[in-house]
Amino acid sequence: MSIQLAALQPVGHSLQAEDLLPESLHQFLACPTPDQWLQWALANPDILLIDHAQCEKKAASTAMSLLYRYVSQSLLLSKMSQLAREELLHFEQVVGLMEKRGVTYRHLTASRYAEGLRQHMRSNDPERLIDVLIIGALIEARSCERFARLIPYLDEELARFYRTLVKSEGRHFEDYLLLARQQTADSIDDRIAFFVAREAELITSPDTAFRFHSGVPV
Amino acid sequence: MSIQLAALQPVGHSLQAEDLLPESLHQFLACPTPDQWLQWALANPDILLIDHAQCEKKAASTAMSLLYRYVSQSLLLSKMSQLAREELLHFEQVVGLMEKRGVTYRHLTASRYAEGLRQHMRSNDPERLIDVLIIGALIEARSCERFARLIPYLDEELARFYRTLVKSEGRHFEDYLLLARQQTADSIDDRIAFFVAREAELITSPDTAFRFHSGVPV
Repeated sequence: MSIQLAALQPVGHSLQAEDLLPESLHQFLACPTPDQWLQWALANPDILLIDHAQCEKKAASTAMSLLYRYVSQSLLLSKMSQLAREELLHFEQVVGLMEKRGVTYRHLTASRYAEGLRQHMRSNDPERLIDVLIIGALIEARSCERFARLIPYLDEELARFYRTLVKSEGRHFEDYLLLARQQTADSIDDRIAFFVAREAELITSPDTAFRFHSGVPV
Repeated sequence: MSIQLAALQPVGHSLQAEDLLPESLHQFLACPTPDQWLQWALANPDILLIDHAQCEKKAASTAMSLLYRYVSQSLLLSKMSQLAREELLHFEQVVGLMEKRGVTYRHLTASRYAEGLRQHMRSNDPERLIDVLIIGALIEARSCERFARLIPYLDEELARFYRTLVKSEGRHFEDYLLLARQQTADSIDDRIAFFVAREAELITSPDTAFRFHSGVPV
Protein backbone atom coordinates (compact mmCIF):
# COMPACT_ATOMS: atom_id res chain seq x y z
CA MET A 1 0.00 0.00 0.00
CA SER A 2 1.44 3.35 -1.02
CA ILE A 3 -0.46 6.62 -0.98
CA GLN A 4 1.59 9.54 -2.19
CA LEU A 5 -0.06 12.69 -0.93
CA ALA A 6 0.57 15.87 -2.88
CA ALA A 7 -0.20 17.85 0.22
CA LEU A 8 -0.91 16.63 3.73
CA GLN A 9 -4.63 16.47 4.35
CA PRO A 10 -5.80 15.87 7.88
CA VAL A 11 -8.56 13.26 7.87
CA GLY A 12 -10.69 15.51 9.97
CA HIS A 13 -11.33 13.59 13.17
CA SER A 14 -11.23 15.65 16.29
CA LEU A 15 -7.91 14.57 17.76
CA GLN A 16 -5.73 17.63 18.11
CA ALA A 17 -2.11 16.61 18.03
CA GLU A 18 -0.51 19.79 19.27
CA ASP A 19 -2.51 19.85 22.48
CA LEU A 20 -1.35 16.36 23.39
CA LEU A 21 2.33 17.06 23.87
CA PRO A 22 3.67 18.70 27.01
CA GLU A 23 5.12 22.14 26.26
CA SER A 24 8.42 20.99 27.78
CA LEU A 25 8.74 18.37 25.04
CA HIS A 26 8.43 20.96 22.28
CA GLN A 27 11.08 23.02 24.05
CA PHE A 28 13.40 20.04 24.44
CA LEU A 29 13.58 19.11 20.74
CA ALA A 30 15.39 21.51 18.41
CA CYS A 31 13.02 21.04 15.47
CA PRO A 32 9.63 19.58 14.60
CA THR A 33 9.35 16.57 12.29
CA PRO A 34 9.47 17.83 8.67
CA ASP A 35 6.34 17.46 6.53
CA GLN A 36 8.36 15.36 4.07
CA TRP A 37 8.78 12.65 6.72
CA LEU A 38 5.06 12.70 7.42
CA GLN A 39 4.31 12.16 3.75
CA TRP A 40 6.88 9.37 3.67
CA ALA A 41 5.24 7.73 6.68
CA LEU A 42 1.73 7.92 5.24
CA ALA A 43 3.02 6.35 2.03
CA ASN A 44 4.50 3.44 4.04
CA PRO A 45 1.85 2.46 6.57
CA ASP A 46 3.06 -1.15 6.90
CA ILE A 47 6.69 -0.23 7.55
CA LEU A 48 5.50 2.45 9.97
CA LEU A 49 3.77 -0.18 12.11
CA ILE A 50 6.50 -2.80 11.85
CA ASP A 51 9.24 -0.34 12.72
CA HIS A 52 7.11 1.09 15.50
CA ALA A 53 6.86 -2.40 17.00
CA GLN A 54 10.65 -2.72 16.68
CA CYS A 55 11.15 0.61 18.42
CA GLU A 56 8.97 -0.34 21.39
CA LYS A 57 10.90 -3.58 21.76
CA LYS A 58 14.27 -1.86 21.51
CA ALA A 59 13.26 0.82 24.00
CA ALA A 60 12.34 -1.97 26.44
CA SER A 61 15.67 -3.73 25.79
CA THR A 62 17.69 -0.57 26.32
CA ALA A 63 15.91 0.15 29.58
CA MET A 64 16.44 -3.45 30.67
CA SER A 65 20.14 -3.41 29.88
CA LEU A 66 20.53 -0.66 32.48
CA LEU A 67 19.02 -2.99 35.11
CA TYR A 68 22.13 -5.14 34.74
CA ARG A 69 24.78 -2.48 34.81
CA TYR A 70 23.56 -0.20 37.57
CA VAL A 71 22.20 -2.35 40.37
CA SER A 72 23.15 0.12 43.08
CA GLN A 73 20.85 2.88 41.77
CA SER A 74 17.39 2.10 43.07
CA LEU A 75 15.56 5.00 41.38
CA LEU A 76 17.09 4.06 38.04
CA LEU A 77 16.14 0.41 38.57
CA SER A 78 12.52 1.19 39.31
CA LYS A 79 12.10 3.83 36.59
CA MET A 80 13.76 1.71 33.91
CA SER A 81 11.89 -1.44 34.87
CA GLN A 82 8.55 0.42 34.77
CA LEU A 83 9.46 1.98 31.47
CA ALA A 84 10.42 -1.40 30.00
CA ARG A 85 7.05 -2.80 31.09
CA GLU A 86 5.21 0.06 29.47
CA GLU A 87 7.12 -0.27 26.20
CA LEU A 88 6.43 -4.01 26.15
CA LEU A 89 2.72 -3.38 26.61
CA HIS A 90 2.82 -1.00 23.64
CA PHE A 91 4.79 -3.58 21.67
CA GLU A 92 1.98 -6.08 22.27
CA GLN A 93 -0.60 -3.50 21.23
CA VAL A 94 1.19 -2.65 17.97
CA VAL A 95 1.63 -6.33 17.15
CA GLY A 96 -2.09 -6.83 17.84
CA LEU A 97 -2.98 -3.98 15.48
CA MET A 98 -0.65 -5.37 12.82
CA GLU A 99 -2.33 -8.76 13.04
CA LYS A 100 -5.77 -7.19 12.78
CA ARG A 101 -4.64 -5.31 9.66
CA GLY A 102 -2.89 -8.24 8.05
CA VAL A 103 0.54 -6.62 8.31
CA THR A 104 3.21 -9.33 8.46
CA TYR A 105 5.88 -8.75 11.08
CA ARG A 106 9.26 -9.13 9.44
CA HIS A 107 12.79 -8.08 10.29
CA LEU A 108 13.68 -4.56 9.16
CA THR A 109 17.14 -3.09 9.18
CA ALA A 110 17.52 -0.38 11.78
CA SER A 111 17.45 3.25 10.75
CA ARG A 112 20.65 5.25 11.12
CA TYR A 113 19.05 7.28 13.94
CA ALA A 114 19.93 5.52 17.22
CA GLU A 115 23.40 4.57 16.02
CA GLY A 116 23.89 8.14 14.77
CA LEU A 117 23.40 9.30 18.35
CA ARG A 118 25.20 6.44 20.10
CA GLN A 119 28.38 6.92 18.09
CA HIS A 120 28.98 10.02 20.22
CA MET A 121 28.69 8.18 23.54
CA ARG A 122 31.62 8.49 25.88
CA SER A 123 33.21 5.27 27.11
CA ASN A 124 33.43 5.44 30.88
CA ASP A 125 30.88 5.98 33.63
CA PRO A 126 29.41 8.23 34.75
CA GLU A 127 29.82 9.93 31.34
CA ARG A 128 28.72 6.86 29.46
CA LEU A 129 25.53 6.49 31.50
CA ILE A 130 24.77 10.21 31.23
CA ASP A 131 25.00 9.96 27.44
CA VAL A 132 22.87 6.80 27.34
CA LEU A 133 20.19 8.59 29.37
CA ILE A 134 20.27 11.78 27.27
CA ILE A 135 19.97 9.68 24.11
CA GLY A 136 17.09 7.78 25.72
CA ALA A 137 15.37 11.09 26.47
CA LEU A 138 15.73 12.21 22.86
CA ILE A 139 14.43 8.98 21.37
CA GLU A 140 11.41 9.08 23.69
CA ALA A 141 10.70 12.74 22.97
CA ARG A 142 11.03 12.36 19.19
CA SER A 143 8.84 9.26 19.18
CA CYS A 144 6.09 11.11 21.02
CA GLU A 145 6.39 14.13 18.79
CA ARG A 146 6.02 11.89 15.74
CA PHE A 147 3.00 10.08 17.18
CA ALA A 148 1.36 13.44 17.78
CA ARG A 149 2.25 14.75 14.31
CA LEU A 150 0.83 11.63 12.67
CA ILE A 151 -2.46 11.55 14.55
CA PRO A 152 -4.44 14.03 12.37
CA TYR A 153 -3.67 11.95 9.25
CA LEU A 154 -4.42 8.49 10.61
CA ASP A 155 -7.59 6.45 10.63
CA GLU A 156 -9.67 6.65 13.78
CA GLU A 157 -8.42 3.41 15.34
CA LEU A 158 -4.74 4.14 14.87
CA ALA A 159 -5.22 7.78 15.87
CA ARG A 160 -6.85 6.68 19.10
CA PHE A 161 -4.01 4.28 19.84
CA TYR A 162 -1.30 6.86 19.12
CA ARG A 163 -3.14 9.31 21.33
CA THR A 164 -2.89 6.88 24.28
CA LEU A 165 0.82 6.46 23.52
CA VAL A 166 1.43 10.20 23.53
CA LYS A 167 -0.39 10.50 26.83
CA SER A 168 1.48 7.66 28.51
CA GLU A 169 4.94 8.29 26.99
CA GLY A 170 4.86 12.09 26.83
CA ARG A 171 6.87 12.51 29.98
CA HIS A 172 9.28 9.59 29.69
CA PHE A 173 11.96 11.91 28.35
CA GLU A 174 11.81 13.85 31.62
CA ASP A 175 12.47 10.67 33.60
CA TYR A 176 15.54 10.05 31.48
CA LEU A 177 16.79 13.60 31.95
CA LEU A 178 16.17 13.46 35.70
CA LEU A 179 18.23 10.28 35.97
CA ALA A 180 20.97 11.78 33.78
CA ARG A 181 21.23 14.85 36.01
CA GLN A 182 21.44 12.63 39.07
CA GLN A 183 24.69 11.07 37.88
CA THR A 184 26.84 14.14 38.53
CA ALA A 185 27.01 17.32 40.56
CA ASP A 186 28.08 19.19 37.42
CA SER A 187 25.74 20.70 34.88
CA ILE A 188 25.01 18.46 31.91
CA ASP A 189 23.26 21.21 29.92
CA ASP A 190 26.06 21.47 27.35
CA ARG A 191 26.01 17.74 26.82
CA ILE A 192 22.24 17.79 26.38
CA ALA A 193 22.56 20.65 23.88
CA PHE A 194 25.19 18.67 21.97
CA PHE A 195 22.92 15.65 21.56
CA VAL A 196 19.86 17.79 20.83
CA ALA A 197 21.77 19.33 17.91
CA ARG A 198 22.94 15.95 16.60
CA GLU A 199 19.39 14.66 16.82
CA ALA A 200 18.03 17.58 14.80
CA GLU A 201 20.63 16.92 12.10
CA LEU A 202 19.52 13.30 11.81
CA ILE A 203 15.86 14.36 11.64
CA THR A 204 16.25 17.09 9.03
CA SER A 205 18.91 15.64 6.70
CA PRO A 206 18.29 13.32 3.71
CA ASP A 207 17.96 9.63 4.54
CA THR A 208 17.83 6.56 2.33
CA ALA A 209 15.23 4.30 3.91
CA PHE A 210 11.90 5.05 5.56
CA ARG A 211 11.76 4.15 9.22
CA PHE A 212 10.04 5.57 12.29
CA HIS A 213 13.09 7.71 13.09
CA SER A 214 14.27 8.50 9.55
CA GLY A 215 15.36 11.90 8.29
CA VAL A 216 13.71 13.19 5.11
CA PRO A 217 13.57 11.34 1.76
CA VAL A 218 16.63 11.83 -0.45
CA MET B 1 22.53 -12.75 59.21
CA SER B 2 22.78 -16.52 59.44
CA ILE B 3 20.34 -18.74 61.24
CA GLN B 4 21.24 -22.40 61.11
CA LEU B 5 18.14 -24.37 61.94
CA ALA B 6 18.57 -27.82 63.37
CA ALA B 7 15.15 -28.71 62.04
CA LEU B 8 12.80 -26.69 59.89
CA GLN B 9 10.17 -24.98 61.99
CA PRO B 10 7.24 -23.36 60.21
CA VAL B 11 6.60 -19.94 61.74
CA GLY B 12 2.96 -20.79 62.08
CA HIS B 13 1.14 -18.23 60.00
CA SER B 14 -1.78 -19.55 58.08
CA LEU B 15 -0.35 -19.61 54.55
CA GLN B 16 -0.44 -23.20 53.32
CA ALA B 17 2.20 -23.74 50.67
CA GLU B 18 1.08 -27.05 49.28
CA ASP B 19 -2.38 -25.80 48.39
CA LEU B 20 -0.95 -22.96 46.33
CA LEU B 21 0.70 -24.94 43.57
CA PRO B 22 -1.29 -26.42 40.72
CA GLU B 23 -1.22 -30.22 40.80
CA SER B 24 0.18 -30.19 37.25
CA LEU B 25 3.29 -28.41 38.53
CA HIS B 26 4.00 -31.11 41.12
CA GLN B 27 3.58 -33.70 38.38
CA PHE B 28 5.90 -31.84 36.00
CA LEU B 29 8.91 -31.68 38.32
CA ALA B 30 10.70 -34.93 39.10
CA CYS B 31 11.48 -34.08 42.73
CA PRO B 32 10.57 -31.60 45.45
CA THR B 33 13.16 -29.15 46.76
CA PRO B 34 15.23 -30.95 49.43
CA ASP B 35 14.96 -29.77 53.05
CA GLN B 36 18.72 -29.05 53.02
CA TRP B 37 18.18 -26.32 50.42
CA LEU B 38 15.40 -24.81 52.52
CA GLN B 39 17.71 -24.64 55.52
CA TRP B 40 20.42 -23.13 53.35
CA ALA B 41 17.97 -20.48 52.09
CA LEU B 42 16.75 -19.54 55.56
CA ALA B 43 20.38 -19.15 56.65
CA ASN B 44 21.01 -16.74 53.75
CA PRO B 45 18.03 -14.40 53.62
CA ASP B 46 19.94 -11.55 51.94
CA ILE B 47 21.34 -13.69 49.14
CA LEU B 48 17.92 -15.25 48.70
CA LEU B 49 16.40 -11.82 47.97
CA ILE B 50 19.25 -10.55 45.81
CA ASP B 51 19.37 -13.71 43.74
CA HIS B 52 15.59 -13.71 43.51
CA ALA B 53 15.76 -10.18 42.01
CA GLN B 54 18.40 -11.43 39.56
CA CYS B 55 16.22 -14.36 38.56
CA GLU B 56 13.21 -12.16 37.81
CA LYS B 57 15.38 -9.90 35.68
CA LYS B 58 16.93 -12.82 33.82
CA ALA B 59 13.55 -14.42 33.23
CA ALA B 60 12.39 -11.14 31.68
CA SER B 61 15.54 -10.94 29.52
CA THR B 62 15.19 -14.50 28.28
CA ALA B 63 11.56 -13.91 27.35
CA MET B 64 12.53 -10.66 25.61
CA SER B 65 15.33 -12.27 23.62
CA LEU B 66 12.70 -14.49 21.98
CA LEU B 67 10.85 -11.37 20.79
CA TYR B 68 13.83 -10.67 18.53
CA ARG B 69 14.39 -14.11 17.09
CA TYR B 70 10.84 -15.25 16.40
CA VAL B 71 8.89 -12.29 15.01
CA SER B 72 6.64 -14.45 12.86
CA GLN B 73 5.09 -16.28 15.84
CA SER B 74 2.39 -14.01 17.19
CA LEU B 75 1.31 -16.20 20.11
CA LEU B 76 4.91 -16.51 21.24
CA LEU B 77 5.38 -12.74 20.93
CA SER B 78 2.37 -11.91 23.04
CA LYS B 79 2.97 -14.61 25.68
CA MET B 80 6.66 -13.77 26.06
CA SER B 81 6.08 -10.02 26.17
CA GLN B 82 3.39 -10.42 28.84
CA LEU B 83 5.63 -12.75 30.79
CA ALA B 84 8.55 -10.30 30.60
CA ARG B 85 6.29 -7.53 31.95
CA GLU B 86 5.17 -9.70 34.82
CA GLU B 87 8.73 -10.68 35.74
CA LEU B 88 9.79 -7.03 35.63
CA LEU B 89 6.97 -6.08 37.98
CA HIS B 90 8.16 -8.78 40.38
CA PHE B 91 11.71 -7.54 39.99
CA GLU B 92 10.57 -4.07 41.10
CA GLN B 93 8.72 -5.59 44.03
CA VAL B 94 11.73 -7.61 45.22
CA VAL B 95 14.00 -4.57 44.89
CA GLY B 96 11.46 -2.56 46.90
CA LEU B 97 11.42 -5.20 49.64
CA MET B 98 15.22 -5.28 49.68
CA GLU B 99 15.36 -1.53 50.12
CA LYS B 100 12.84 -1.65 52.94
CA ARG B 101 14.95 -4.32 54.66
CA GLY B 102 18.28 -2.60 54.09
CA VAL B 103 19.57 -5.37 51.81
CA THR B 104 22.13 -3.92 49.40
CA TYR B 105 21.72 -5.03 45.82
CA ARG B 106 25.06 -6.30 44.57
CA HIS B 107 26.22 -8.48 41.71
CA LEU B 108 26.20 -12.19 42.47
CA THR B 109 27.71 -14.86 40.30
CA ALA B 110 25.07 -17.04 38.66
CA SER B 111 24.34 -20.48 40.03
CA ARG B 112 25.23 -23.48 37.89
CA TYR B 113 21.53 -24.23 37.35
CA ALA B 114 20.49 -22.40 34.15
CA GLU B 115 23.81 -23.11 32.45
CA GLY B 116 23.58 -26.73 33.58
CA LEU B 117 20.35 -26.98 31.60
CA ARG B 118 21.34 -24.80 28.64
CA GLN B 119 24.49 -26.82 27.93
CA HIS B 120 22.18 -29.52 26.54
CA MET B 121 20.42 -27.18 24.11
CA ARG B 122 20.46 -28.20 20.48
CA SER B 123 21.84 -25.69 17.98
CA ASN B 124 19.30 -25.29 15.20
CA ASP B 125 15.66 -24.33 15.13
CA PRO B 126 13.11 -25.61 15.72
CA GLU B 127 15.05 -27.89 18.13
CA ARG B 128 16.85 -24.97 19.71
CA LEU B 129 13.64 -23.07 20.42
CA ILE B 130 11.91 -26.20 21.74
CA ASP B 131 14.79 -26.69 24.20
CA VAL B 132 14.77 -23.01 25.23
CA LEU B 133 11.05 -23.25 25.95
CA ILE B 134 11.31 -26.53 27.88
CA ILE B 135 14.12 -25.04 29.98
CA GLY B 136 11.99 -21.94 30.53
CA ALA B 137 9.15 -24.13 31.73
CA LEU B 138 11.43 -25.91 34.20
CA ILE B 139 12.93 -22.72 35.62
CA GLU B 140 9.45 -21.24 36.08
CA ALA B 141 8.09 -24.40 37.69
CA ARG B 142 11.05 -24.81 40.05
CA SER B 143 10.92 -21.16 41.07
CA CYS B 144 7.26 -21.46 42.00
CA GLU B 145 7.82 -24.70 43.83
CA ARG B 146 10.57 -23.03 45.87
CA PHE B 147 8.45 -19.98 46.65
CA ALA B 148 5.71 -22.29 47.92
CA ARG B 149 8.15 -24.40 49.93
CA LEU B 150 9.63 -21.30 51.57
CA ILE B 151 6.35 -19.64 52.52
CA PRO B 152 5.69 -21.47 55.82
CA TYR B 153 9.12 -20.42 57.16
CA LEU B 154 9.09 -16.76 56.13
CA ASP B 155 7.96 -13.67 57.98
CA GLU B 156 4.41 -12.53 57.25
CA GLU B 157 5.36 -9.81 54.74
CA LEU B 158 7.64 -11.99 52.63
CA ALA B 159 5.26 -14.93 52.89
CA ARG B 160 2.43 -12.75 51.57
CA PHE B 161 4.59 -11.56 48.67
CA TYR B 162 5.73 -15.06 47.74
CA ARG B 163 2.13 -16.20 47.87
CA THR B 164 1.19 -13.60 45.21
CA LEU B 165 4.13 -14.79 43.10
CA VAL B 166 3.06 -18.41 43.30
CA LYS B 167 -0.45 -17.44 42.30
CA SER B 168 0.61 -15.31 39.33
CA GLU B 169 3.52 -17.46 38.11
CA GLY B 170 2.12 -20.91 38.92
CA ARG B 171 0.99 -21.55 35.36
CA HIS B 172 3.81 -19.89 33.43
CA PHE B 173 5.46 -23.25 32.89
CA GLU B 174 2.35 -24.40 31.04
CA ASP B 175 2.61 -21.45 28.65
CA TYR B 176 6.20 -22.42 27.92
CA LEU B 177 5.26 -26.05 27.32
CA LEU B 178 2.33 -25.06 25.09
CA LEU B 179 4.64 -22.92 22.95
CA ALA B 180 7.25 -25.71 22.83
CA ARG B 181 4.68 -28.24 21.61
CA GLN B 182 3.53 -25.81 18.91
CA GLN B 183 6.95 -25.86 17.26
CA THR B 184 6.63 -29.35 15.84
CA ALA B 185 4.07 -31.94 14.82
CA ASP B 186 6.18 -34.59 16.59
CA SER B 187 5.92 -35.48 20.26
CA ILE B 188 8.40 -33.67 22.47
CA ASP B 189 7.64 -35.80 25.51
CA ASP B 190 11.03 -37.55 25.43
CA ARG B 191 12.82 -34.23 25.24
CA ILE B 192 10.80 -32.88 28.15
CA ALA B 193 11.61 -36.04 30.15
CA PHE B 194 15.31 -35.58 29.36
CA PHE B 195 15.37 -32.01 30.72
CA VAL B 196 13.18 -32.90 33.71
CA ALA B 197 15.77 -35.54 34.67
CA ARG B 198 18.71 -33.12 34.23
CA GLU B 199 16.87 -30.53 36.31
CA ALA B 200 16.30 -32.99 39.15
CA GLU B 201 20.01 -33.87 39.15
CA LEU B 202 20.94 -30.21 39.53
CA ILE B 203 18.43 -29.77 42.34
CA THR B 204 19.40 -32.84 44.36
CA SER B 205 23.20 -32.93 43.92
CA PRO B 206 25.80 -31.11 46.05
CA ASP B 207 26.45 -27.50 45.10
CA THR B 208 29.10 -25.05 46.25
CA ALA B 209 27.28 -21.72 46.56
CA PHE B 210 23.84 -20.83 47.84
CA ARG B 211 21.56 -19.35 45.19
CA PHE B 212 17.84 -19.46 44.47
CA HIS B 213 18.32 -22.44 42.16
CA SER B 214 21.17 -24.22 43.97
CA GLY B 215 21.41 -27.92 44.66
CA VAL B 216 22.10 -28.99 48.25
CA PRO B 217 25.03 -27.83 50.38
CA VAL B 218 28.23 -29.83 49.92
